[in-house]
Amino acid sequence: MGKRFAAGIDIGGTNTVIGLVDEQGGIAGRASILTAGFDAAEDLVKAVCEKTVALCAQHGNATLMGFGIGAPSANYYSGCIEHAPNLKWSGVIPLVSYFTKHLQLEAVLTNDANAGALGEMLFGAAKGLKDFLFVTLGTGLGSGIVVNGQLVYGHDGMAGEMGHVILIPDGRLCGCGRKGCLETYCSATGIRKTFLEKSGRKDHPEIDAKSIFDLAEEGDVFAIESFKYTGALLGLALANSVAYTSPSHIFLFGGLAQAGERILQPTRKSLKANLLHIYKNKVKLGLSQLAENDAAILGAASLIWNKHQPANS
Amino acid sequence: MGKRFAAGIDIGGTNTVIGLVDEQGGIAGRASILTAGFDAAEDLVKAVCEKTVALCAQHGNATLMGFGIGAPSANYYSGCIEHAPNLKWSGVIPLVSYFTKHLQLEAVLTNDANAGALGEMLFGAAKGLKDFLFVTLGTGLGSGIVVNGQLVYGHDGMAGEMGHVILIPDGRLCGCGRKGCLETYCSATGIRKTFLEKSGRKDHPEIDAKSIFDLAEEGDVFAIESFKYTGALLGLALANSVAYTSPSHIFLFGGLAQAGERILQPTRKSLKANLLHIYKNKVKLGLSQLAENDAAILGAASLIWNKHQPANS
Repeated sequence: MGKRFAAGIDIGGTNTVIGLVDEQGGIAGRASILTAGFDAAEDLVKAVCEKTVALCAQHGNATLMGFGIGAPSANYYSGCIEHAPNLKWSGVIPLVSYFTKHLQLEAVLTNDANAGALGEMLFGAAKGLKDFLFVTLGTGLGSGIVVNGQLVYGHDGMAGEMGHVILIPDGRLCGCGRKGCLETYCSATGIRKTFLEKSGRKDHPEIDAKSIFDLAEEGDVFAIESFKYTGALLGLALANSVAYTSPSHIFLFGGLAQAGERILQPTRKSLKANLLHIYKNKVKLGLSQLAENDAAILGAASLIWNKHQPANS
Repeated sequence: MGKRFAAGIDIGGTNTVIGLVDEQGGIAGRASILTAGFDAAEDLVKAVCEKTVALCAQHGNATLMGFGIGAPSANYYSGCIEHAPNLKWSGVIPLVSYFTKHLQLEAVLTNDANAGALGEMLFGAAKGLKDFLFVTLGTGLGSGIVVNGQLVYGHDGMAGEMGHVILIPDGRLCGCGRKGCLETYCSATGIRKTFLEKSGRKDHPEIDAKSIFDLAEEGDVFAIESFKYTGALLGLALANSVAYTSPSHIFLFGGLAQAGERILQPTRKSLKANLLHIYKNKVKLGLSQLAENDAAILGAASLIWNKHQPANS
């Protein structure tokens, strides 16, 4: 029997990325397919299966353990993508059954942030931890909650939408149609809005989290204030989150997390100030240790490896 | 071998209540001891053990499976009561080890709301459910979170403090020293404060949740408004909670929950209005089916029965 791999598949609005991931989190091969090039989801799945088989062929007698799939609006229990606003296929897409129809292998689907949390637990900073939060600060705010070593899926497979906790009643309008959701403040999009509000520069379409970070490093007062404000709200929201599942660690990931101490410092300060006394000095806040470019693949592959005994851990 | 019982022990500031509970949730015998009568916690434990043995003796050859104990500020993992503000023993009390020292039987400790959630799952409205929230609306607001059939304890045994989620930043001063905690609004104490604020009657020391309910039933506008306001905030907080663990059901318990539809109706309305679209029409809000007087004993005994195969379920 050859080396064993799990296929980690990340389905995004633009690209679908495939990676062959071994038990230690090594990525042996990669491929990318244009998601938007397929009018039918089943045709994309067929192409993904063929590419994966081709990647395996390059590794001799490789054994493919199954497909772990991260996708937006994914339901773990049903194996369906449900009404994803960023994908061109409307309605409910039975993705897992498309996979198992093409190749008789295990296929597991969940949303990107949940997959990221598992990836962190198997291959990143959360190795050996049983209770932690994984928070992605990208276009929106995604979250994966791990309790007692298990990812929280909820009764319907849709748990962990911390980005849509209403932090500021009647606050900023969210893409979900409600107001004041955490992700309208604490995300790459959120800090952009904060910076534009604070600086009064409503005419800066090119401003993004990275350029606000650069401005802050150069001493721009509005940029510095924007990070402080974002961290203050994120710290409050995380302190509230701790009261639910009492995690030992919180890991930040994604574009905004790449600002490092610039976002960690005000978040840590606010988390500490807002934590209930019984949790004080117990929760560690840090950055994900998954490389930005590998995280989606590793997270997706973790859906398969998490079900099998790891070799050396 | 005689009939099997678990001892359900509820340690309160005033009384400690003991009940012998069978596998079906039947309570075969009860006793009560003045908590405040014991300067040392170990002496109370000794008295509880003796009373429990005496209760068992009244049931012939009864087999005692162990002690399930509900107490404030209880840590499930350490088996200790930690700095409970309402008990006269200060510091960290190793309660479980006191029990096992006196009788070589299993002893399990957790806080009252967590025990209540287990009681609801084994003997109440949550039978067969795997993902639900149990919320007690008493002097404060307590919560027990069940995920995938397991109570959430968190890394330190102290999870499920939903009453201390900060709902209104810089809001009402909470007993925990912070401001705006959910329980300062949504509890028997919270609705009292709301009523006094709305009515301007700051001189009503005898007003409580029950009398506000009676006033509302009589048509008092301030009392009616107080229930609406409390329900609106509770519904928002519950909608936020759903975004974490996606429960199928939420059960309300305790003094304020006894107002029935008077509190359920505005809470349900607000929950529905504030739920993220993916959760809409999936979460049922209802009342606990544990009798107010039995709940603490049944919940505590559930800590033992939950570890053993139930006879008929």
